[in-house]
Amino acid sequence: MDRFAYINGSYKRHNQAEISIDDRGLQFGDAVYEVYSYQNGRVLDDDLHLNRLERSLGALGIKMPITRDSFKTIVARLVKMNNLKTGLVYFQISRGTAPRDHFIPKKKITPNIIITTKSMKIPDNSKMVKPINVISQDDIRWGRVDIKTVMLLPNCMAKTNGREKDCEEIVFVKNGVVTESASSNFFFVDSDNNLITAPTGDILEGITRNTLFDCAKKLGLKVIERKFSIKEARQAKEAFVSSATQIVRPIKKIDDSVIGDGKNYDICSKLYDMYMKIIPKIVE
Amino acid sequence: MDRFAYINGSYKRHNQAEISIDDRGLQFGDAVYEVYSYQNGRVLDDDLHLNRLERSLGALGIKMPITRDSFKTIVARLVKMNNLKTGLVYFQISRGTAPRDHFIPKKKITPNIIITTKSMKIPDNSKMVKPINVISQDDIRWGRVDIKTVMLLPNCMAKTNGREKDCEEIVFVKNGVVTESASSNFFFVDSDNNLITAPTGDILEGITRNTLFDCAKKLGLKVIERKFSIKEARQAKEAFVSSATQIVRPIKKIDDSVIGDGKNYDICSKLYDMYMKIIPKIVE
Repeated sequence: MDRFAYINGSYKRHNQAEISIDDRGLQFGDAVYEVYSYQNGRVLDDDLHLNRLERSLGALGIKMPITRDSFKTIVARLVKMNNLKTGLVYFQISRGTAPRDHFIPKKKITPNIIITTKSMKIPDNSKMVKPINVISQDDIRWGRVDIKTVMLLPNCMAKTNGREKDCEEIVFVKNGVVTESASSNFFFVDSDNNLITAPTGDILEGITRNTLFDCAKKLGLKVIERKFSIKEARQAKEAFVSSATQIVRPIKKIDDSVIGDGKNYDICSKLYDMYMKIIPKIVE
Repeated sequence: MDRFAYINGSYKRHNQAEISIDDRGLQFGDAVYEVYSYQNGRVLDDDLHLNRLERSLGALGIKMPITRDSFKTIVARLVKMNNLKTGLVYFQISRGTAPRDHFIPKKKITPNIIITTKSMKIPDNSKMVKPINVISQDDIRWGRVDIKTVMLLPNCMAKTNGREKDCEEIVFVKNGVVTESASSNFFFVDSDNNLITAPTGDILEGITRNTLFDCAKKLGLKVIERKFSIKEARQAKEAFVSSATQIVRPIKKIDDSVIGDGKNYDICSKLYDMYMKIIPKIVE
């Protein structure tokens, strides 16, 4: 079956879909993106993702090019055309097409909009049977990782380094402090059952991260956003990464340190279950 | 007259030239580029630029996709098709097209090659009549600016900030130390007529920068690559930026400090003249 992509008002065959060579996203990384899950007929947290999309664009001085309702209509149509059951929706919005120049055009240009879907099984992490190993990596990303731009080469390099050591994800460390993972947020649980994660500023504010705060509170866990070292993280009772697709993915090892007893992920499991319980209330 | 661009083996009308939405350069900044000058029938320093292109690709684990001779043949043909007299040649090479995934594909994929030209007058800086003002800006770029990737959004943002203060260029400062400018290298001359610029590592090794080292030596100036503060730069006798298009562009003011007497650019002028004198020997 053909797979389609939406580009600037048209639905094109995905493998033939193209964008101008003068797109500022292509030439300068002057573009933002969002990824969210589609499961059994519903998009998860789409309003929250559209909020963040608008915030990322705003940080670059770009206005939302079409209304939220238009975005939702396009996604609904694309999902139908691609017969998507379970998978991802991907948005990429650049500043637009302009003659190559470092200076951001003074004249308003029209953003380029790319929307695609990808059919994939969303991993069922409910049983916590697939914990991952992670390694720490120097965080060499630029200073505005709070904006969800396509400037992802260091993330790609770090994850690829991790793969060489059989790690599915990595943990970035900047000036001795853990920031986040390459394509997810990083959390750990301390001996007092506090849920600890890096504060906003040096990280991208994850949609799933924020929803997990609500889950934790419902479970009676204290959420603490603070700076911490990789050494402290290695001594955690439990640790996990969160993202729109993985929700909660437990960590077995950080570098050479086994986390907790390396077998029990009770709090991870409870957080995951609570997420699945409260999520319909958000998207209904 | 139509303007053409080269994309993966084809010559297409520039304004219709497009690239796959799954290009890794577009989605991850996983691409490198080069820009060089074309003047009166000759390309300046093309071998040096191709050397650097190969080095940038190598740093990302990408092999040169076609031979140097092929690159030169394409440029020659494009220059002819576009009736280019004076201007720029632009290369952008990405890792290639692949389904979106942070992990760099294990399977070898074919790089995407984009080559374009742009007709423009190369500014005659020989008389040093157009000095620029610059402002210092926090260097928030990623940690591998020694690779010439398309991860240029912070450069664009910094230059655009500069423009708001009537500055054509900016000077990046990282941890109290000057690195380089947003699209050029930064130099200053101290009271002993030493030519000072940042060492390689925190900067992109400029082609023009390196040729200017030879020029300085021929002029009996000592070249010192070392770390220095913005405060020291502000007290310079002369200061300038260098790039493939500007060669030597003198600086009148850094932030609120006038450089030297704000009128004389003797050493800048001598360096420019020497560059113009030795450059044919390099490209002939």
